[in-house]
Amino acid sequence: MTGTGARRSWWGWGTEDQALTDDQATRLGASLSSRFGLGELSLAPVPDLGDLELAPPRVTPPTSLADRCSDDRRDRAGHTYGKSFRDVARAVAGRLEHPPDLVAHPRTEADVVAVLDWCSDAGIACIPYGGGSSVVGGVEGRVGDGYAGVISLDLTGLDRVLEIDRTSRAARIQGGVLGPALEDQLRPHGLTLRHFPQSFEFSTLGGWLATRSGGHYATVLTHIDDMVESMRVVTPTGVSESRRLPGSGAGPSPDRWFLGSEGALGVVTEAWMRLQDRPDHKVSAAVRFDRYDDGVAAVRALSQSGLAPANCRLLDATEAGLSAGATDGRHVLVLGFESADHPVDADLARALELCADHAGLRPDPEPARTAAAADDGAVGAWRSSFLRAPYTRDALVRLGVVVETFETACTWDRFESLHAGVIEAVTAAAADRGGLAVVSCRFTHVYPDGPAPYFSVYAPGLGGDLVEAWDEIKAAASAALLAHGGTITHHHAVGRDHRRWYDQQRPPVFGRALAATKASLDPAGVLNPGVLVDPVR
Amino acid sequence: MTGTGARRSWWGWGTEDQALTDDQATRLGASLSSRFGLGELSLAPVPDLGDLELAPPRVTPPTSLADRCSDDRRDRAGHTYGKSFRDVARAVAGRLEHPPDLVAHPRTEADVVAVLDWCSDAGIACIPYGGGSSVVGGVEGRVGDGYAGVISLDLTGLDRVLEIDRTSRAARIQGGVLGPALEDQLRPHGLTLRHFPQSFEFSTLGGWLATRSGGHYATVLTHIDDMVESMRVVTPTGVSESRRLPGSGAGPSPDRWFLGSEGALGVVTEAWMRLQDRPDHKVSAAVRFDRYDDGVAAVRALSQSGLAPANCRLLDATEAGLSAGATDGRHVLVLGFESADHPVDADLARALELCADHAGLRPDPEPARTAAAADDGAVGAWRSSFLRAPYTRDALVRLGVVVETFETACTWDRFESLHAGVIEAVTAAAADRGGLAVVSCRFTHVYPDGPAPYFSVYAPGLGGDLVEAWDEIKAAASAALLAHGGTITHHHAVGRDHRRWYDQQRPPVFGRALAATKASLDPAGVLNPGVLVDPVR
Repeated sequence: MTGTGARRSWWGWGTEDQALTDDQATRLGASLSSRFGLGELSLAPVPDLGDLELAPPRVTPPTSLADRCSDDRRDRAGHTYGKSFRDVARAVAGRLEHPPDLVAHPRTEADVVAVLDWCSDAGIACIPYGGGSSVVGGVEGRVGDGYAGVISLDLTGLDRVLEIDRTSRAARIQGGVLGPALEDQLRPHGLTLRHFPQSFEFSTLGGWLATRSGGHYATVLTHIDDMVESMRVVTPTGVSESRRLPGSGAGPSPDRWFLGSEGALGVVTEAWMRLQDRPDHKVSAAVRFDRYDDGVAAVRALSQSGLAPANCRLLDATEAGLSAGATDGRHVLVLGFESADHPVDADLARALELCADHAGLRPDPEPARTAAAADDGAVGAWRSSFLRAPYTRDALVRLGVVVETFETACTWDRFESLHAGVIEAVTAAAADRGGLAVVSCRFTHVYPDGPAPYFSVYAPGLGGDLVEAWDEIKAAASAALLAHGGTITHHHAVGRDHRRWYDQQRPPVFGRALAATKASLDPAGVLNPGVLVDPVR
Repeated sequence: MTGTGARRSWWGWGTEDQALTDDQATRLGASLSSRFGLGELSLAPVPDLGDLELAPPRVTPPTSLADRCSDDRRDRAGHTYGKSFRDVARAVAGRLEHPPDLVAHPRTEADVVAVLDWCSDAGIACIPYGGGSSVVGGVEGRVGDGYAGVISLDLTGLDRVLEIDRTSRAARIQGGVLGPALEDQLRPHGLTLRHFPQSFEFSTLGGWLATRSGGHYATVLTHIDDMVESMRVVTPTGVSESRRLPGSGAGPSPDRWFLGSEGALGVVTEAWMRLQDRPDHKVSAAVRFDRYDDGVAAVRALSQSGLAPANCRLLDATEAGLSAGATDGRHVLVLGFESADHPVDADLARALELCADHAGLRPDPEPARTAAAADDGAVGAWRSSFLRAPYTRDALVRLGVVVETFETACTWDRFESLHAGVIEAVTAAAADRGGLAVVSCRFTHVYPDGPAPYFSVYAPGLGGDLVEAWDEIKAAASAALLAHGGTITHHHAVGRDHRRWYDQQRPPVFGRALAATKASLDPAGVLNPGVLVDPVR
């Protein structure tokens, strides 16, 4: 599962060995074609790296950094994009727009400082790059005019757990470590960060912090923000290191100023993170609802009960059918509780009572009591589908299907209109291009005051330029999100793709504060330009 | 309890009718004198307001604000200080240093904007003032040179709950509402903010937000930071209003930039706050420990168990004796669980098991099952003492006793040395002045990675200027906090009194970002000068 040793794909998700083979992809296309009554879907080939046009690098590193910088063709191509639909579609089409001139591979924090110094002095845009799993254009070289070049700063060489404090259950960890390598280093101590975003295998601690990553769990300790004890951030004007504290009221939190700054204010080289014991009490169940509104009401009741389920994913019937194999047209709530300290059966029992109050159909047979048992049935089907989804998505892209996700959060009072409005906007935008869009929705996270709905769009058979087609649908969806009281992103971040709507969402006064901070910390305006806030140069 | 109708004390805590009478204070002095073997403690009189020297106001409001501004003697005297020991001691001594020239009483947000405009234009320092309960010099006119005058901006006229969203369990609330009036407006809806700092009766929502207030509860939803859905903040350069959202990953949180800004970046006029149902399942117990280290280890285990007790206050033997009537020399852990949804007996049972693992002595009789029953025994004694404490403190100040508290947070691995180091520093500093200091400690909040210890100091019989004496002890304590890995404040805020140590604690790079933000939002540098960060003027 960790892909150790396997070569990373330069054009799609994950590692090359996990991608669907041409045969598998062709069979997927045939199945899709018959299901939606489409004509034959032809499978686009993955271009040969040697055929891609890559302009020679515009910049030359100083001697001291020469052995840290790569102009390798695979390296540059692989660091050109993140992993959104529009990224993969462009890569498959052989369109490498704004590739980095060089990829820097620092091995120490001093290397990071040296790269930033060089970029500031030479007016080179520097794009911090962790696992490269951004789906919002957060790691690409689309930086605007006026830069001498673009460096992709690949931080995965900073991949160690440096120190463990077992008493306080915390560890000092380098920012470039990928999820599996991080957990591998914690496991011998019986500890876990227990942060499992869908990108887990191919995203880094620093990336999670820079984008305010949301983990797998539905409630309570799931946002990376809440797991931070202190951070060490390299900015062009110095290193900021906050004090290691379990809590503090000494002014605004320095960490919260950097969390979500998406590489525009600094580069996270280390953090002290709060850890957990590995949970061994687990119980889960799937509850079915005939009416979607009932499922929503049940989840709302659960979110306000204080029960804190680890999983509380309401899949609408479309999502349940596509990814959990539920073919009865019902909506499915995947529920789970976990603890490292005590049994959680009573919590699940109470949660099932709340579901029953809202016409939830009790699971049959009894709730699964162990992690292994939980891999049966709808719960397990959904989990397996979840981890394979990005690879399947890559095959669909090659088949010319527009397939993408977007996500938001809103208060409960606005959810019904947001849900309807978003689906209407997406299907209308697809229809405008003469196509069909299937839109499904699940909740990834729930809060006492509202859910975080996650929408998946499958639009086969759209004509013309598929990137342009998606951009139109995305614009319609984004406008609907804002109009109905949602956020432009709950955990995918802003990047370059969400910037237009982020600027509408962000209070202008706060935008000025952010710009002033950016000017103070990054006076040359070289850090990830175009993301979040425009540098004043 | 709410003090409605009773007149606020201009020199001490709360309302005049709740202060100890001269007779009560004298009896307290006699009891203290015999307990510590001191000579007779004489009771200083409270000065007559008419005898105080108050320079005439240096500024005159514009006509449009004339009826919002007061130069009343009681108003100015009452807004001169917060409520720390050094504040009350100076007031009782008739020393009114830096009184505000005028007290502004806005009735609308437009009034607030007008006051800030006037202050910016005229170079007048503006001190936002909620309930005036600051114990860190956060609301006083010690603003440095170069201001034409000082206005205390009393926000308590903005005291309404404007809107309630029952579905999402949230309310839009004005920043100047005091705790009891806020809960009174929520109670008819069966809702509560459930934020009960010790200052509850005499502090405001806006003050809680500006200082990152910590509530009564020990874990989870106790910090005001986590209850904010959105904020509306008036700055000298415009109003910032964030979007109402249950969660968002769209850049750094605008709310987290203003939370803890202590009136130096803006004035909170409104916020959408997350509410809770009123808990009706409550259970509590007191556990005793012979050895302090065992109590600490039990609390650490509890903090890492995921049980989330509402109360988890470890009182050391000194604290238990002084405030909970425990005279057996044991350390006491006050434990409580609450829920609005389900019974919490199993949680308490598991917590008691964890305590037993660390030599905790089981409570006898059975744990209290209701709120009323919980008022018996050590739990109730401590609660009653907690609410009366500030009034008792005022009497002690009049008796010439140095009595004050300070608080911090640190990771578990550092607690033992911090605890010993702080007590040693305080007792040594008192001894340097030929006096005795009794130092007690309790935990106000606990986190999986560390506790928030709260120290109380009683130093009777110190000679000379008692404010100066306390300042020396406080300096020794603060240096020890920082040296042993603590924060200069966990929930009392920075104000002016903690500024020296805050500057040491704050990462310099972050300090520059804060200064840049301040310059952007408050270009005239008039908002609460001297707090957190110096304005560039």
